[in-house]
Amino acid sequence: MKKRSRFLQVPIEPFTVDPEVKADELLEKMERISFQGRSLGVAHRVWQKMLADDVTIFMGMAGALSAGGLRMVVAYLIEHRYIDCLVSTGANLYHDLHETRGRHHYLGSAHANDAALAEDRIDRVYDTYASEEEFSDNDVWIGDFVTTLDERPYTSREFLNLLGGHLWKTTGQNGILTAAYRAGVPIFCPAIADSSIGMGLSQGRHKKPGSGHIDIIGDIVESANLVIRRPRTASIVLGGGTPKNFINQASVQAEFFSPAVGGHRYALQIVTDVPHFGGASGSTLEEAQSWGKLAADAAQVTVHADATVALPILATALARSSPALAAKRRRPDIDPSQKDMLVDGAPISSDRFEETE
Amino acid sequence: MKKRSRFLQVPIEPFTVDPEVKADELLEKMERISFQGRSLGVAHRVWQKMLADDVTIFMGMAGALSAGGLRMVVAYLIEHRYIDCLVSTGANLYHDLHETRGRHHYLGSAHANDAALAEDRIDRVYDTYASEEEFSDNDVWIGDFVTTLDERPYTSREFLNLLGGHLWKTTGQNGILTAAYRAGVPIFCPAIADSSIGMGLSQGRHKKPGSGHIDIIGDIVESANLVIRRPRTASIVLGGGTPKNFINQASVQAEFFSPAVGGHRYALQIVTDVPHFGGASGSTLEEAQSWGKLAADAAQVTVHADATVALPILATALARSSPALAAKRRRPDIDPSQKDMLVDGAPISSDRFEETE
Amino acid sequence: MKKRSRFLQVPIEPFTVDPEVKADELLEKMERISFQGRSLGVAHRVWQKMLADDVTIFMGMAGALSAGGLRMVVAYLIEHRYIDCLVSTGANLYHDLHETRGRHHYLGSAHANDAALAEDRIDRVYDTYASEEEFSDNDVWIGDFVTTLDERPYTSREFLNLLGGHLWKTTGQNGILTAAYRAGVPIFCPAIADSSIGMGLSQGRHKKPGSGHIDIIGDIVESANLVIRRPRTASIVLGGGTPKNFINQASVQAEFFSPAVGGHRYALQIVTDVPHFGGASGSTLEEAQSWGKLAADAAQVTVHADATVALPILATALARSSPALAAKRRRPDIDPSQKDMLVDGAPISSDRFEETE
Amino acid sequence: MKKRSRFLQVPIEPFTVDPEVKADELLEKMERISFQGRSLGVAHRVWQKMLADDVTIFMGMAGALSAGGLRMVVAYLIEHRYIDCLVSTGANLYHDLHETRGRHHYLGSAHANDAALAEDRIDRVYDTYASEEEFSDNDVWIGDFVTTLDERPYTSREFLNLLGGHLWKTTGQNGILTAAYRAGVPIFCPAIADSSIGMGLSQGRHKKPGSGHIDIIGDIVESANLVIRRPRTASIVLGGGTPKNFINQASVQAEFFSPAVGGHRYALQIVTDVPHFGGASGSTLEEAQSWGKLAADAAQVTVHADATVALPILATALARSSPALAAKRRRPDIDPSQKDMLVDGAPISSDRFEETE
Repeated sequence: MKKRSRFLQVPIEPFTVDPEVKADELLEKMERISFQGRSLGVAHRVWQKMLADDVTIFMGMAGALSAGGLRMVVAYLIEHRYIDCLVSTGANLYHDLHETRGRHHYLGSAHANDAALAEDRIDRVYDTYASEEEFSDNDVWIGDFVTTLDERPYTSREFLNLLGGHLWKTTGQNGILTAAYRAGVPIFCPAIADSSIGMGLSQGRHKKPGSGHIDIIGDIVESANLVIRRPRTASIVLGGGTPKNFINQASVQAEFFSPAVGGHRYALQIVTDVPHFGGASGSTLEEAQSWGKLAADAAQVTVHADATVALPILATALARSSPALAAKRRRPDIDPSQKDMLVDGAPISSDRFEETE
Repeated sequence: MKKRSRFLQVPIEPFTVDPEVKADELLEKMERISFQGRSLGVAHRVWQKMLADDVTIFMGMAGALSAGGLRMVVAYLIEHRYIDCLVSTGANLYHDLHETRGRHHYLGSAHANDAALAEDRIDRVYDTYASEEEFSDNDVWIGDFVTTLDERPYTSREFLNLLGGHLWKTTGQNGILTAAYRAGVPIFCPAIADSSIGMGLSQGRHKKPGSGHIDIIGDIVESANLVIRRPRTASIVLGGGTPKNFINQASVQAEFFSPAVGGHRYALQIVTDVPHFGGASGSTLEEAQSWGKLAADAAQVTVHADATVALPILATALARSSPALAAKRRRPDIDPSQKDMLVDGAPISSDRFEETE
Repeated sequence: MKKRSRFLQVPIEPFTVDPEVKADELLEKMERISFQGRSLGVAHRVWQKMLADDVTIFMGMAGALSAGGLRMVVAYLIEHRYIDCLVSTGANLYHDLHETRGRHHYLGSAHANDAALAEDRIDRVYDTYASEEEFSDNDVWIGDFVTTLDERPYTSREFLNLLGGHLWKTTGQNGILTAAYRAGVPIFCPAIADSSIGMGLSQGRHKKPGSGHIDIIGDIVESANLVIRRPRTASIVLGGGTPKNFINQASVQAEFFSPAVGGHRYALQIVTDVPHFGGASGSTLEEAQSWGKLAADAAQVTVHADATVALPILATALARSSPALAAKRRRPDIDPSQKDMLVDGAPISSDRFEETE
Repeated sequence: MKKRSRFLQVPIEPFTVDPEVKADELLEKMERISFQGRSLGVAHRVWQKMLADDVTIFMGMAGALSAGGLRMVVAYLIEHRYIDCLVSTGANLYHDLHETRGRHHYLGSAHANDAALAEDRIDRVYDTYASEEEFSDNDVWIGDFVTTLDERPYTSREFLNLLGGHLWKTTGQNGILTAAYRAGVPIFCPAIADSSIGMGLSQGRHKKPGSGHIDIIGDIVESANLVIRRPRTASIVLGGGTPKNFINQASVQAEFFSPAVGGHRYALQIVTDVPHFGGASGSTLEEAQSWGKLAADAAQVTVHADATVALPILATALARSSPALAAKRRRPDIDPSQKDMLVDGAPISSDRFEETE
């Protein structure tokens, strides 16, 4: 009798249509098909493993996800502590603030007449519109808030926590910044200078010379110290960009000072970029292992999909499959509301790396 | 008071996480977000419009969707007549036949050692494996069937209907070919020569000289005549490739002979290719309007996503939202089991275009 | 002293700007940089190796390369025998015929108003226009030619050779079809039914019942027999699609009948598709090894680039670096002008696979 | 007589192979073909227009272009003033510094065994390797330099000019940082915290508390003031990312304070991202017009290609076609070596926006 190849173990199970299935069941079925459908199913599984283990979960977000309608999903993940630390582009925080302040983004068309839009001062993000005038008002609002701060550098983490608090007190509305403020989830924004949040800061300085200093080098030290304190980490990346690298950099930098750090134990990325042009956004998780960004035995998955397709399904599935895991997980106790962030009750520095032995 | 811009009408509604939501509700929520998430929501809406209208629904499928676990989804769409005519690559039909005959594709890894796989005679399709030996057995099986046919040319449509019938009689199993056979849904395969179905045909001819003639020019005439008879059409495209163009070509060719044909009334494509390299797979539905492939006022949507992500969700949503629409729709009455296909009871030629005035 | 890692052998040499450099020198410099720039440099090297070795060079072309301005590059490669056999989509041959007959494609805009174009009966291919009226005239011209042929099936190879001959006699102009006719380079078009060439054939049949039969299963047998006769092969693929698979299929099918066939010795593909959606167009050359499409030790390279960027440079470089190699190479002697194609003087069948032992 | 459509004006001219053609001639021929080949030809034309006009040319670079072998191309563009201001990711400057200090990146394989690389402490960037040990030595070198600076915030522009000067004095080698230092071309790095340059800065602070402060909000003010002073601008973008947005943001922010600013007069981007996922890297130049980032009548072109393919050819072509244009152009006189950057002899602030009327 012919021996079966060791490669032919688990058959593909053709997806069968069941109209009443819920999101988690849908993704469980998709684990047994192929290509990116399978990857999305595996992503659900990997995230559950993160929740079941004792790890600090970083999430990075790049791309116009807040303008694109995903800000309340991220707020949900923060509030229910499916993540412990957010790294974001400035634009996602700005668009979140825009809506938390009661304004909107609008359904638009990718085939718009951009000259006509420009005449009406409408900004287009692919198929989505926003009013420039309302944006300008945000800039003023942020600038005014900046003038109330001390004339000293703030890490982006400290600044964004204060901004979230001010936003919460002013509006009482849920969103990414306010959810993070209330849940004690730190937000880092390493490229804050490249966003309208940065523009608001610059307008604050324009009003009050000496204000609007963001200490992004302090963010590097602080994020590395967070990993040194809590060396078991997981990385979730939406869209690549600076957040993806910043999360990996924290791990690499921490490992320099602490032998206990050995790269992320879990990694999940939802990206549309591809590896073969050499850019960081599209780089594979395999490549990350060469740098020590990812533990060699890490559970990991890349989903090649637009986050606006993948995240609504994935978050809905998690919300059904994993509330108990999320509630009971051993998560780090972080207080990002101080100048020096507290981790498990003790402050961490943004000036010196903590050395261990 | 400031007048609101005409461009700012309908706000984005941030997606909110509801764990108990079902697939159709999920896609309805996604219609109010942005980017490809919105497109997927709109795709659900556009398909419903097709079902509610009096149109013949063509579906094209390219890419390794059968091997990748979507064959029972396509069988479901055929059986419940969410579509009326399938245009497929040969590979999708071959991989369907493979599983209908009781064999499997297997979960594999995209990072496999291909030399080791070759040694075990395992064929890899990205993250999916199949046994070459089992494939060879299919070729023989198809070749044997071919030798039972008359020594005359068959359109791919006629051949595939007979193949589906033989498969059904032999196995009694559901799948694309057998579902189409039982539902009277014709399948065209214009590039049948470029597939293992074609290889099976060539082996039939090897065994019995003069056999294995496929009249793919007859397919052109027949598909155009189908549109001439039933000028209101809709196009659903998974993955581009030859099926996408063949469906459009039927419309363009038909219009040449009948003024009543005016391009598809609805169009929905789920593709991963992009337009800017000029290939047909990635071409936009707007471009299709310049050719008259698509009516100028057609309801249409492109979803830039892997079909293994998009189709399971979309089909599940439709199965919940639209069974009544599908059951009651005015669909064409097609009998693909004859040499000359019957449409609404009357035969159509594969030799001459039907001229109308 | 620290030992150097075995992985750090050959340094990247930063590309330095030299205004007077020619295309082959440019690509030689690019072999020492990274990412797709390096791949393009390596492609030049791999093609040279094909020319230096005793292999039959197949080239596949998909995507709108003829309409897009590359038809005279392909004609050059045929005329100077940088390739031995062409596999093409029908559209590329049709657009070639269009220009060889003295018509044009036109510079257009990707942001055109497609409704306005439709009104003027202008067909758009991304940023390129053509006149529908002139296209219709081609269809009639092809249809008329078809009515002059015998009422028997023709392989696409035989038909396209005759069409090229008729075109050459009528116009005396250079192009893909006429260059192939004159150079004795066979052209296969497995998906001819999915193109305007196919539409012309169908119009021939409409005029003269019984005409317009293309025996694409015969193409499968014939192409495999070509490989059985000449088992050492190389594959060049532009854009994927049916030609990519057909070239590989010939090798796989031939191996079934002849142990001397062991997959392509060289492979070079210029594609824009990616592997992770599972489609054949984007599949890797590594994956091809699992199927035996490619020899395990083959020199191979994938260039992820638009062929309209890569091919003009690559062909110009080859024309400077390799005319002697191309002139002196041991190339197969093929005569595609007969019903049974002659290879090295002896006919090969389109009905039976040649069995060797 | 039939009137010709207004859409059919300029025929495609099929590219003809001429082995002796040089890079500029090659691109001129490519202007008459289609798709991204044409776009690359047009890019050459648009850059020439920038040089002929009185505009300040910004160039952004993202992606691993320095590691990938393009740093000497960028140095050439700086030295010969094909550009006036560079905005870069930190990684590109770090990898430039690495090689200027005499170290290398290495030819590697995209299919490497990353576990084996990790063991040898080799970092992989797709098909390129680097030694972690040598990288660590750079970090120390940067950190030591940081401790020699004053304990005050530096804009990234001031810091990078000082770093370039230190590097020049230490090595006397050409590269991006040293060429910019010598040519008086400012470099902004808004996301410096997300790079190894940032890691070096953080290590400087670790050694000397209070050091390593980068004032990235000052960069926003300063870059906008540069545009206010010199309102006619052009934008060249390689690879998207934060540099793309930062260049546009400078224009948008400047327009807020000065009515003379009206968006870039010219724009050229070489990107691999696509628009339909909504991210900024792939966003179209049309969309940029809705925001006022680009003048409505701007000459602009997007090339969808890997920069390692497109830039070597484009820069070589420019170096041949345009040295006279580059030498004679009316370029801004910038001195980036002071705390307050001098533009045409007068300092500009990083604290207050310059208001004009």
